[in-house]
Amino acid sequence: MDVVVIGGSAAGLKAACRISRLQPNTRIRVLVKDRYFAYSNCGLPYFLSGEIESFDSLISTPNNTIKNEKYFREVKGIEILPSHEVVDIDRAARLVRCVNIEQNTEATFPYDKLVISTGATPIIPAIPGYEAEGVYTFTKPEDAIKLRRELQSKEIDKVLIIGGGFIGLELCDAFTALWGVDVELVELQNQLLSGLLDIDLARLVETELTANGITLQLGCGCREIVMDSGRLCVFDHSGDMIQADRIILTTGVRPNSLLAKEAGLEIGVTSGIKVNDHLQTTDPDIYAAGDCVEIPNAVDGHAGVWPLGSLASRMGRVVGDNICDGDSGFGPVVGTMVLKMFDLTIGSVGLSRSDCVDKGYELGESWGTFHDRLNYYPDAVPLNAKLIYDKSNGKLLGFQAVSKGRIVHTLNLAAQIIRTGGTLDDLNDIEHAYAPPYALPFDPLHYLGYIAENSLTAGVKLISPMEFANLPDDTLILDVRIPSEIEGTPLNMGDRRMAAIPVEELRSRLNEITHNGQVVTVCQMGSRSWDAALMLRRAGFENVGILAGGALFLPQSLQN
Amino acid sequence: MDVVVIGGSAAGLKAACRISRLQPNTRIRVLVKDRYFAYSNCGLPYFLSGEIESFDSLISTPNNTIKNEKYFREVKGIEILPSHEVVDIDRAARLVRCVNIEQNTEATFPYDKLVISTGATPIIPAIPGYEAEGVYTFTKPEDAIKLRRELQSKEIDKVLIIGGGFIGLELCDAFTALWGVDVELVELQNQLLSGLLDIDLARLVETELTANGITLQLGCGCREIVMDSGRLCVFDHSGDMIQADRIILTTGVRPNSLLAKEAGLEIGVTSGIKVNDHLQTTDPDIYAAGDCVEIPNAVDGHAGVWPLGSLASRMGRVVGDNICDGDSGFGPVVGTMVLKMFDLTIGSVGLSRSDCVDKGYELGESWGTFHDRLNYYPDAVPLNAKLIYDKSNGKLLGFQAVSKGRIVHTLNLAAQIIRTGGTLDDLNDIEHAYAPPYALPFDPLHYLGYIAENSLTAGVKLISPMEFANLPDDTLILDVRIPSEIEGTPLNMGDRRMAAIPVEELRSRLNEITHNGQVVTVCQMGSRSWDAALMLRRAGFENVGILAGGALFLPQSLQN
Repeated sequence: MDVVVIGGSAAGLKAACRISRLQPNTRIRVLVKDRYFAYSNCGLPYFLSGEIESFDSLISTPNNTIKNEKYFREVKGIEILPSHEVVDIDRAARLVRCVNIEQNTEATFPYDKLVISTGATPIIPAIPGYEAEGVYTFTKPEDAIKLRRELQSKEIDKVLIIGGGFIGLELCDAFTALWGVDVELVELQNQLLSGLLDIDLARLVETELTANGITLQLGCGCREIVMDSGRLCVFDHSGDMIQADRIILTTGVRPNSLLAKEAGLEIGVTSGIKVNDHLQTTDPDIYAAGDCVEIPNAVDGHAGVWPLGSLASRMGRVVGDNICDGDSGFGPVVGTMVLKMFDLTIGSVGLSRSDCVDKGYELGESWGTFHDRLNYYPDAVPLNAKLIYDKSNGKLLGFQAVSKGRIVHTLNLAAQIIRTGGTLDDLNDIEHAYAPPYALPFDPLHYLGYIAENSLTAGVKLISPMEFANLPDDTLILDVRIPSEIEGTPLNMGDRRMAAIPVEELRSRLNEITHNGQVVTVCQMGSRSWDAALMLRRAGFENVGILAGGALFLPQSLQN
Repeated sequence: MDVVVIGGSAAGLKAACRISRLQPNTRIRVLVKDRYFAYSNCGLPYFLSGEIESFDSLISTPNNTIKNEKYFREVKGIEILPSHEVVDIDRAARLVRCVNIEQNTEATFPYDKLVISTGATPIIPAIPGYEAEGVYTFTKPEDAIKLRRELQSKEIDKVLIIGGGFIGLELCDAFTALWGVDVELVELQNQLLSGLLDIDLARLVETELTANGITLQLGCGCREIVMDSGRLCVFDHSGDMIQADRIILTTGVRPNSLLAKEAGLEIGVTSGIKVNDHLQTTDPDIYAAGDCVEIPNAVDGHAGVWPLGSLASRMGRVVGDNICDGDSGFGPVVGTMVLKMFDLTIGSVGLSRSDCVDKGYELGESWGTFHDRLNYYPDAVPLNAKLIYDKSNGKLLGFQAVSKGRIVHTLNLAAQIIRTGGTLDDLNDIEHAYAPPYALPFDPLHYLGYIAENSLTAGVKLISPMEFANLPDDTLILDVRIPSEIEGTPLNMGDRRMAAIPVEELRSRLNEITHNGQVVTVCQMGSRSWDAALMLRRAGFENVGILAGGALFLPQSLQN
């Protein structure tokens, strides 16, 4: 049997290795357009930053064997053909025609089964002047290698990053932490990581970004790039100019599905290649895997594209199984993602708030601030988390978290429960690993479920961190923290009506509160404010709310 | 309504707080036998070690408010009565009779609903002399406070710990890390953590323990304790003597169910109080929660006792709900546990190998050594893990892991999947959070599932780390690592037949292998040995095995 794989990264190579293992007599050719293959794409930001010393680490096995053509031939039984750009798939003749870019020759390879794993391409925003020298995207080893060389030779004082998504934030860290380069980030939306994080969590990320010296402009669109006296100048829509030595466009990626489309394969609404649950395209002899396909979302069944290395690797294995007469399914998925930015870990899974609103869900949200391990254990730090659910049936829709400590042990649990259709009730039964160095006796997911349940039944309104800035005028804010906490994290509420009574004294001092309108209780992390709110309710106050997640969930602007 | 709670730790107090929140007009009394209550039991080892400076941290809220009687009265609306030992439950009259130990008076309290949360008691092994001064158990604040005072005043040079379970190992760390005390640990079984870890993982824990200077004796029973010239002397069954300044008995705990038994409530086979899935005892007005009850195991339905703080807290909340006319269920459970011992994190969930053998399962096992994050990312370290499943239907039975890095994000996933009755197939669909600083593109659970599947279908035998020491005489061990790895982690295999060919060269050097018997391939972490084994199978070798988990899963004795 002849198998041809188009593309030499995670999905394609995994498929090739799996086929070679299951059916060793197969002739497997992997056609790679570029010079590099089998590199860890996700590692490029850490190579740029210098945390990873040598580029070879990204193309080596754990025992430092370089994964070159010889390695794949000798160990895996696969032929890799670099610099082979596929120009045409002749489905009738079952032939792949390609150009050898280095030698400028043509070659044609027959296939019985074909795997398309062409990945994704950077989206280039329509900004006049984007072709100027010094304007980069950041998806290939060549980008990272060239930029790192320029950093080492000190050609770069200032970088402008356009696009505050996943890669943009990783690059803020990479340029700053070890190289000390000046970084400015502009983002068209009014928040970072839109689509992945809701605005309340995004504000915490923005706080961390600016605390690390990044200049941040939200809601800022770029109009034009021009070169002036050797420097790049970017004009935004309000006419302001930003100068920089290099510009990195990190405005997202789109599936590389043109070849499939030209071959007459069906393309989905997302512009990803359409595949069934066995990752077969509309031609049963052609499979597709990785960033170039669309896969349904497990929460609502809508098609999505998921440029995530973990999914690409797993898809490759599934394609390998199925080409060897296996019966492996893939998807739907929930898009579990985690990101390190400076000391912050940022995670998200499932739908975001705006997704849910767009799709007409009866939106339920709960927020909480917890410690990432037992509060008295050394190095315990706060963890901000949020749960999104369907109020009509309790079904979980999304989970997001941000912390300078650990979040992945909760994020993975959330992903598993959301992916399998879990509800608020299922959170009760979570049995997480607990010991003081690792966790609290309750997982954040237990707490978020309890908070959701309490907010639905206790007659107390959850005020979101973003709503807190815009409370009605007749609101009394009752701060129930102790004075040292208020001093450490003061609230900057302008001329709001405020009172401060520690929760420990509130029961005996309730008579001091004579307010008629809404009372919103505030504490540090959102737990004591519940106790306070319930005391108020019992004392006859009708209109009581709490600041969800407490003062430590507020954006910097409201904290001082 | 009158509610009486017996016991002032996690389960009882959580129940009390929940009731007070849901039905604030309830009169809630918590009767506490001891002076201390509301302390974090799990924190005692870290207080002893000095990592936690002040005992007050263990009885405070995150904002450093001491959780004393006033706190519970003012903030939570609960009466706490310390030093009140309950001596009798009069179910007919719905009265609890108790003795005030400090004042030596009696008191009687009426109840409409009663909560028994009497916890667990240390098991004292029947060693003559155990009452000697200087012999401790370690379950109460008094133990930890006294021992720490003795450490501070330098009265202790040498400690003998009897019992190599959870607490015993935490104490090895606590006495050694900051105080530098000489510690010897004796354990009756031939492995540490029996019941929690299988012997292959326990051996790795033992390696770490001795590397930290602990003297370890396995299979060592104590016959007698005597006091001689001011020092404690312990004679073991072979007549050897161990001298120590203090002895700590950490031979496990048993449910404190006597009071319930005397009141005529049904006690289970484990000696835990029998409860239904609403945590009601055989008297519907009496609930029980925490370490004193028995709860079925989710894997096989057998009753178990689970002295885990996380379960106790959750049980308390469920009891509170149900007393307030709620409908909350609890259990079955899988016993997710995690433990820090020096730099090692040790985790386990579900059944162990010996459990499974005893219960007649058709045992399937897979082992693997992975990195805890991407191998090229700074600080990546190996992670040893094991999966246990039922070969007859693929159902997952247990998971265990040990690493100097992170394991909890995988352990929690395993717990969720095992608890919900998952199979090997379900591992394929896990969608874990991946980025180089946090994980591999595949989770260890993906890999362990693949290894299980491969071992069932590929005609290659998985040799466990323990079996590797006792291979048949006619076995050839084929080491496919590169020379620098072999040098770093050599195999100490005595006069075994061995050959060394790096996997990268094996395809072209297969003719060098002329062995007729079993060939077992070995690499560093268990991945390359698969490639090698498959090459051998294709070349016609019939009897091929691989060392599961590679050289980094071998106990120290086989590594050099």
